Amino acid sequence: MTIPVGTTVTLRVPASSANLGPGFDCVGLALGVWDECTVTVTQEPGLVVDVAGSGADSVPRDESHLVVRTMVTTWERLGVAAPAGLHLSATNAVPHGRGMGSSATAIVGGVAAAHALAVRGGVLAAEELDLTAINSIASALEGHPDNASASVFGGATLSVTEADQPLPRTRTVPLRLHRQVEAVVLVPETTLSTHTARSVLPEVVPLATAAANSARTGLLVHALTSEPELLLMATTDLLHQEARRPSYPHSMELVDALRAEGMAATISGAGPSVLVLTTGDRVEQIRRIADATSTDWQVLIPGVPERGVHLV
Amino acid sequence: MTIPVGTTVTLRVPASSANLGPGFDCVGLALGVWDECTVTVTQEPGLVVDVAGSGADSVPRDESHLVVRTMVTTWERLGVAAPAGLHLSATNAVPHGRGMGSSATAIVGGVAAAHALAVRGGVLAAEELDLTAINSIASALEGHPDNASASVFGGATLSVTEADQPLPRTRTVPLRLHRQVEAVVLVPETTLSTHTARSVLPEVVPLATAAANSARTGLLVHALTSEPELLLMATTDLLHQEARRPSYPHSMELVDALRAEGMAATISGAGPSVLVLTTGDRVEQIRRIADATSTDWQVLIPGVPERGVHLV
Repeated sequence: MTIPVGTTVTLRVPASSANLGPGFDCVGLALGVWDECTVTVTQEPGLVVDVAGSGADSVPRDESHLVVRTMVTTWERLGVAAPAGLHLSATNAVPHGRGMGSSATAIVGGVAAAHALAVRGGVLAAEELDLTAINSIASALEGHPDNASASVFGGATLSVTEADQPLPRTRTVPLRLHRQVEAVVLVPETTLSTHTARSVLPEVVPLATAAANSARTGLLVHALTSEPELLLMATTDLLHQEARRPSYPHSMELVDALRAEGMAATISGAGPSVLVLTTGDRVEQIRRIADATSTDWQVLIPGVPERGVHLV
Repeated sequence: MTIPVGTTVTLRVPASSANLGPGFDCVGLALGVWDECTVTVTQEPGLVVDVAGSGADSVPRDESHLVVRTMVTTWERLGVAAPAGLHLSATNAVPHGRGMGSSATAIVGGVAAAHALAVRGGVLAAEELDLTAINSIASALEGHPDNASASVFGGATLSVTEADQPLPRTRTVPLRLHRQVEAVVLVPETTLSTHTARSVLPEVVPLATAAANSARTGLLVHALTSEPELLLMATTDLLHQEARRPSYPHSMELVDALRAEGMAATISGAGPSVLVLTTGDRVEQIRRIADATSTDWQVLIPGVPERGVHLV
């Protein structure tokens, strides 16, 4: 049984920040910058991909397009036959290679579209958007759940992966973000691939460092949900940012400058964007600090959406 | 200026569990088992120590008694002269060497007694029990803040130490423990010193392990405060328990048996007691599982007191 010709879905997926300092590979935060795509099963066999917005001049228009690849893999996992003809129309606002989770956004979009098309087409009995299932598949495809889970559920998320299972299973809990927490993202012109960023991480860390980072991750959960005044201390990372400093020196310069002024600044995901968690209106102060560095920073105040991927 | 003869304080300090799995050296839980002591400045110079209860047959009666040593050090830190004559009368219920924080209980008692005597005696201008100050001194003397902070504040606590300060400064946040969380402690006949337990820990751990343990510590904070159903997953430790298995094989046997039945069991502090965090009445089930092991376990349901050290 195949998904009928004419079946179509349109959905929106938010960008995300990850890590937030010590929550390396486990804490995510949805950002109100949205990719939108429409996927339709066509009479005509073959694949047509239209892309507008971010990455329009660089992403492939064939089977290697990340949303398309993801849909095909998702259908395989769901035991659903991929349709012969497919039209993808994507309008992207999430910038690529900036640490705002663009690949997770694409993967979540692909998983959600494949899932919803299968349900709408009558070949899968489930809710159109089963967020738990979408989260598991997207996190496994992405390799770590931090960005993907935030794009799936919105808000702030904490994910734990049970690696000792036959298949790694991700459990994500939405965190009730304190209403005073605001996110500001500072985006540079330069890009950095996650792969490059990851290559400079140490293989081992002292036990005391692992314990101290664990304490700060606990404090991060507490500060995000209950006591945002502690966010400066709660965003002190001990695992990844310093090791990657040579990969994004200008970003670390800005993080250091912001933190010296009491702002909870971290590298956003694998960088090079910088995330600042603030309470109240400190945007002008942030802008002033950013302007005093040697780099041009675009200042975004995207908001933290309460929901993640959804059908339009 | 010295503390006047006749100045006296009586105070109670609760026992504690520490770590709760991944919260190594940072998460504590007060337990409703209490040490009580009365300290009086005497006309007669010299020291008199009376001890009843736990440790009465083994602890020293001279300046090396932990409460006395702690008082002397605390007065030094506070810039207060130690009185020439002192009488300590201690009635202890916290068992020694079982992983229930008896040394932290004694240290917190000593710091609090020294502080309160100085205030009552008019040589220190402060609240009689300044819990923040007592926590900082006690954590520094104990070397890590997990047990001490729980004994100071009661309830569940999360502590972060800023090691890059000239003097390590501990920041403790009380966690609002979910009302359904109950603590059961299983105490064996055998004892184990924290020093012995610490000696078998690895010096370094893989970065991925540090990240995974950090995620679980975040989940522990979430589960303790908001979603106790997740406590089984949230008490999965990756840093210390397995490495110490040879130090407390019977305790790990019990932890394994309890966890296999879905109970959030961990080694209490440095062991060998076992802590189980439960929701609802599963005490009989816990007792049955413990009885099926090769060791005799005393089952305590001490309650989690909402306050820690206090004057009587």
